[in-house]
Amino acid sequence: MQRNLFTDDHEAFRALARDFVEKEVVPAYPEWEKAGRMPRDVFKQMGALGMLGMAIPEAYGGAGITDYRYNVVLQEEAARALVTLSTVRTQLEVILPYFLRYANDEQRQRWFAGLADGTLLTAVAMTEPGTGSDLAGMRTTAVRDGDHYVLNGAKTFITGGIQADLVIVVARTSTDPENRRKGLTLLVVEDGMPGFTRGRELEKMGCKVQDTAELSFSDVRVPVANVLGEEGEAFSYLGHNLPQERLTVAVGSVAQARSAIVAAIDYTTDRKAFGTPVSSFQNTKFELAACSTEVEAAQAMLDRAIALHVDGELSGADAARVKLFCTEMQARVIDRCLQLFGGYGYMMEYPIARLYTDARVARIYAGTSEVMKVIIAKSLGL
Amino acid sequence: MQRNLFTDDHEAFRALARDFVEKEVVPAYPEWEKAGRMPRDVFKQMGALGMLGMAIPEAYGGAGITDYRYNVVLQEEAARALVTLSTVRTQLEVILPYFLRYANDEQRQRWFAGLADGTLLTAVAMTEPGTGSDLAGMRTTAVRDGDHYVLNGAKTFITGGIQADLVIVVARTSTDPENRRKGLTLLVVEDGMPGFTRGRELEKMGCKVQDTAELSFSDVRVPVANVLGEEGEAFSYLGHNLPQERLTVAVGSVAQARSAIVAAIDYTTDRKAFGTPVSSFQNTKFELAACSTEVEAAQAMLDRAIALHVDGELSGADAARVKLFCTEMQARVIDRCLQLFGGYGYMMEYPIARLYTDARVARIYAGTSEVMKVIIAKSLGL
Amino acid sequence: MQRNLFTDDHEAFRALARDFVEKEVVPAYPEWEKAGRMPRDVFKQMGALGMLGMAIPEAYGGAGITDYRYNVVLQEEAARALVTLSTVRTQLEVILPYFLRYANDEQRQRWFAGLADGTLLTAVAMTEPGTGSDLAGMRTTAVRDGDHYVLNGAKTFITGGIQADLVIVVARTSTDPENRRKGLTLLVVEDGMPGFTRGRELEKMGCKVQDTAELSFSDVRVPVANVLGEEGEAFSYLGHNLPQERLTVAVGSVAQARSAIVAAIDYTTDRKAFGTPVSSFQNTKFELAACSTEVEAAQAMLDRAIALHVDGELSGADAARVKLFCTEMQARVIDRCLQLFGGYGYMMEYPIARLYTDARVARIYAGTSEVMKVIIAKSLGL
Amino acid sequence: MQRNLFTDDHEAFRALARDFVEKEVVPAYPEWEKAGRMPRDVFKQMGALGMLGMAIPEAYGGAGITDYRYNVVLQEEAARALVTLSTVRTQLEVILPYFLRYANDEQRQRWFAGLADGTLLTAVAMTEPGTGSDLAGMRTTAVRDGDHYVLNGAKTFITGGIQADLVIVVARTSTDPENRRKGLTLLVVEDGMPGFTRGRELEKMGCKVQDTAELSFSDVRVPVANVLGEEGEAFSYLGHNLPQERLTVAVGSVAQARSAIVAAIDYTTDRKAFGTPVSSFQNTKFELAACSTEVEAAQAMLDRAIALHVDGELSGADAARVKLFCTEMQARVIDRCLQLFGGYGYMMEYPIARLYTDARVARIYAGTSEVMKVIIAKSLGL
Repeated sequence: MQRNLFTDDHEAFRALARDFVEKEVVPAYPEWEKAGRMPRDVFKQMGALGMLGMAIPEAYGGAGITDYRYNVVLQEEAARALVTLSTVRTQLEVILPYFLRYANDEQRQRWFAGLADGTLLTAVAMTEPGTGSDLAGMRTTAVRDGDHYVLNGAKTFITGGIQADLVIVVARTSTDPENRRKGLTLLVVEDGMPGFTRGRELEKMGCKVQDTAELSFSDVRVPVANVLGEEGEAFSYLGHNLPQERLTVAVGSVAQARSAIVAAIDYTTDRKAFGTPVSSFQNTKFELAACSTEVEAAQAMLDRAIALHVDGELSGADAARVKLFCTEMQARVIDRCLQLFGGYGYMMEYPIARLYTDARVARIYAGTSEVMKVIIAKSLGL
Repeated sequence: MQRNLFTDDHEAFRALARDFVEKEVVPAYPEWEKAGRMPRDVFKQMGALGMLGMAIPEAYGGAGITDYRYNVVLQEEAARALVTLSTVRTQLEVILPYFLRYANDEQRQRWFAGLADGTLLTAVAMTEPGTGSDLAGMRTTAVRDGDHYVLNGAKTFITGGIQADLVIVVARTSTDPENRRKGLTLLVVEDGMPGFTRGRELEKMGCKVQDTAELSFSDVRVPVANVLGEEGEAFSYLGHNLPQERLTVAVGSVAQARSAIVAAIDYTTDRKAFGTPVSSFQNTKFELAACSTEVEAAQAMLDRAIALHVDGELSGADAARVKLFCTEMQARVIDRCLQLFGGYGYMMEYPIARLYTDARVARIYAGTSEVMKVIIAKSLGL
Repeated sequence: MQRNLFTDDHEAFRALARDFVEKEVVPAYPEWEKAGRMPRDVFKQMGALGMLGMAIPEAYGGAGITDYRYNVVLQEEAARALVTLSTVRTQLEVILPYFLRYANDEQRQRWFAGLADGTLLTAVAMTEPGTGSDLAGMRTTAVRDGDHYVLNGAKTFITGGIQADLVIVVARTSTDPENRRKGLTLLVVEDGMPGFTRGRELEKMGCKVQDTAELSFSDVRVPVANVLGEEGEAFSYLGHNLPQERLTVAVGSVAQARSAIVAAIDYTTDRKAFGTPVSSFQNTKFELAACSTEVEAAQAMLDRAIALHVDGELSGADAARVKLFCTEMQARVIDRCLQLFGGYGYMMEYPIARLYTDARVARIYAGTSEVMKVIIAKSLGL
Repeated sequence: MQRNLFTDDHEAFRALARDFVEKEVVPAYPEWEKAGRMPRDVFKQMGALGMLGMAIPEAYGGAGITDYRYNVVLQEEAARALVTLSTVRTQLEVILPYFLRYANDEQRQRWFAGLADGTLLTAVAMTEPGTGSDLAGMRTTAVRDGDHYVLNGAKTFITGGIQADLVIVVARTSTDPENRRKGLTLLVVEDGMPGFTRGRELEKMGCKVQDTAELSFSDVRVPVANVLGEEGEAFSYLGHNLPQERLTVAVGSVAQARSAIVAAIDYTTDRKAFGTPVSSFQNTKFELAACSTEVEAAQAMLDRAIALHVDGELSGADAARVKLFCTEMQARVIDRCLQLFGGYGYMMEYPIARLYTDARVARIYAGTSEVMKVIIAKSLGL
């Protein structure tokens, strides 16, 4: 269905992104998969092309354009080429907003140029072993000691944790038994700080081109100058960015489901079974028609949500609905498309297999489908 | 999710419609259900309020506003009150477009005032026993004899067939073996024409407030002046209106699914099981959250399609996608909501039971889900 | 899949049942649907043929064979002919077990002959407006007064309530705040007892050939001789019969789903669309293959459960699983089969429409799907 | 639900298998996963324990017991411990039947002892790049040349192809344009025969403990003495074994789905979210109850099919139904169970992630779900 989300400027950026993905990403992708990450050079290339700094003020080498749709375009173009851009999505859509919103001038001076040019890679460390999404139960602590905080704790499921130069760590700086949401603070831990160690790189089912790690902090002395925003206010900061974080998952889900359909149409048109193209079977046609219908519904819902988000009017409950619907849709659609590949669908050399294993996390991270339902039910007065 | 489809004018019309539905429809509805139709007086009331003539030129007593969104508002307000407006939907969204587009000046003089003021009720007679959606296989014939056509044949599944004053009959006026799509013509058969008889009123599972009938035509002499549009061109006329016809089903599906959720929230909040409100069970919350998510996805898709339709840019394949998605969604959502009513959901005095039986036809009429998939698959190049 | 449940005796009974259904039920069924019940004469006919008394001791005119499989055969043969036998199922499978197990000699003398020959029709009155399945919250009371209990209260959703000569009423005879399960008693209320009135006959979505009623009891003096079993023990009596009650729903669900497939195969083989039989479309084949697969899975599960039940070894949790699976399967299968009928599927003259509306209650009565899940989860230690 | 399939002998074998799996398989499994196969030693261990030779005549070191249920027990015990036994399943259930049924005395002498003691590993090479399940389109040829056939062609998706000592290759030995099913022959190619090369080992989504390979045959001279059965009769041989081949997939599917539920119960009981065990949420309970219900339905269907198979009475269509149902059930159940693990479900160190990726092939190999539907539809007369 005709979309109405993008302007000529977005389309120009799309052309740039498409070209970059085709030339720089697709050919190297199998290697990156083996390595488990995208090389740092490529981040720098993307920085040089202006892809990482769109939202960063011009003073620091960025374009100063805070328009979420550029992020959408980037994800769409990666998905179109059946790849992902490693941790770029997390960096731009999940982490950068914290820097943009909460960094003070001094911090901007220190970090923004590096964020824009691709020399500084980032991660956000929220989840702890055993607490999951429950921020209130967080056990990592940061105790003030003069000009520093002494940080202790362990984090897990940290996307980009191995490569990160800067890690935004959520830690408890005080305990108020009356208000468990109070007392969380964001500290930027830098690569090389004594006591900061990277633990195991976790082996995931999919998403092989981005690392996921355990991090541990043992008496890490983090300068007070590295606090992002106000001490004790992290709970609301984290909540504030959640709608975008969920939207960003949905953007990937829809774009990847769409790609799966294109791949399945191509495959079934080429492939013969019992002497006729698989695409000529009514079952194939109906499956793909059903998939296409689901993708268009999701796209319409998502585009509407993006438009609201651009206008600053997307509610948390609607973001939850969009994430829930788009990720569940992705699962159904990619599963059905894969089935049309027969045995080849199970072979990792066919991108559909990667789409399938990548997809499984979408219903889990940035809040599981169940968490989404909790949020939605509340908005219904239940 | 916030919608962006309506202007203040639509909202004013909504207020009018809401008021009318509450005062005139809801109290009388149980009677209409027993009678199997809405009384003619109510059509006239609606005519007097300007609800039937929005799209009819001012010269004939209408408002001259061809904006599909007024139809949307009317359906939404009926669904909101858990009723339907009998054949009004069919008249305004399926039949009126033929009159508006193809009636000549003389016909406009004869019929438009009556269409606007609710004195002329209409039906369109397309389906025949045994041919279903296959227009090319149509066997009703109209043979030219001087200033008349002699019409013979039988039609079935005719919504409003019993009450109709004017029936647009699709008949074969010539046979071109090279082009089976040629030779179909629209004739307006009037109540009382000799040889035109209403057959059985069909007993349906739901949709009790609108009659569905078999019609038969035995040597009915229809004046040439009652031909709508050009002789032999009906196939393309019918095709031209199909996207709107499908959209209109989707509008009802989404609005009714939305109403089912509201009804289920109300019921489960009041109703206790084992001492606590049913709405406090996690299962209830999750079911309603999932339903709400589906409705919002469908609404976004539908609203986008309506906007495209208002701009004259909705493709047949996208209309098919919208119908497929929204009607399948309706089935899932209403079934889940009904389940939350327990035994009461099976009792016809609870509107949810009516929503359920009404809903089953939505995946069938105006083209089954399977026909939608055929159309969508073609648009994918399959 | 080949079944291994029945002996030659069952098959002989099946032949008898099939013959009876074809000759006595099928031709009269449309009339019964209009009347909303099966005439009393037919119960007597069935009694005379020995169909109602299989399990009743020979001394009272029965066959003295307590083998649940005869009930299975009866339901299967009704479903095979696309009908139901009104309240016979409830009488034989839900109510009779209480009489057989708990009636004392004097009661046997009074009632068993009439139960066997079809002159005594029965109902069980458990559910109350507002309490649903929550026996502990029951508010109907029976206060001992000499040789009588004085019964007061209201019951709803009573299958066969209008026609019943004997109604087993569950009432509270004492209140133990420590044990809310204690103090419930079964009293047999007889037609004509002063203060016993039948309320409204409830209009249901389907199941039109059996009445469902509200009953009310206002100072009804029920002789102590009409107490079934021990005073205060009804809670365990009711629980004891639940697995069979649930099994019986599953038996109907599977048999009706099977019939829906046969009907759909017949219809799609006869019916042409675009010049070819609907059965020749791959979608039709795949839908019916999927339906057939589901029915066979359900049948295997059900047959295994029946065998266990005959051996007295079916657990409550397994009965819950069987009910849950078979009724959900029925819903899916009948919905898919109906879809293959196109517009005819929505017309009540086609039995598939009746199967559809009948089916909706199966996931609700005898414990909703949600109640089944509660029971199953407990059995998993959750 | 209580099963009735096994005797004491089977249960004794089960104890043996359970012990073996726990001691020899579970501890070493992570290594085997990395290696992509199970070491040859372990096959020999299994041979020594009598697990590979159950069905092989005693004369050759086997137990001479052809009872399919031993295979069932072996698969169930592997699944119970959340592992698979590499290619053992394929060897015992798919390949061994060909040897048992078609090997002549001389071949028995040569190969049976090795098959029983685990020194001879096997594969069957049927699928070719581009032909899929379409045997009639097979292009590998074997041309008679004196005492040899000269074999040329390529095969793909060969389970165990890398490790196999003996490969049963399906080749075309003659072409009858009237009967494309004629002319296929089974040849046993041995490791080391000149011209027989193993191609790439294919990287699969899951099933990491068994290799899957491309094989190629370039002028391989296969002695006539290595023909299995009659020349030209392979088509019927292959068809004859298909029901068991499908049953064997279903056995694994049910056993693995069952294990997923156990794993999910364990995990959700231990794991807390927001301070309470995840297992205490109603959603968790209902999900697991639903999963358990599906598994029991599948188990009942499967057990019935196994009993019929043991009696030689399982039809091809019923085997297809069982495979279709059990594999689709497996997909649904494992997906739902994984979801309950949250982020851990996506980590390969949790066996649920392996169950998930292993499961995806079950709907594809041994005939896709779509092929099953074709077979079932035929049996319905469609």
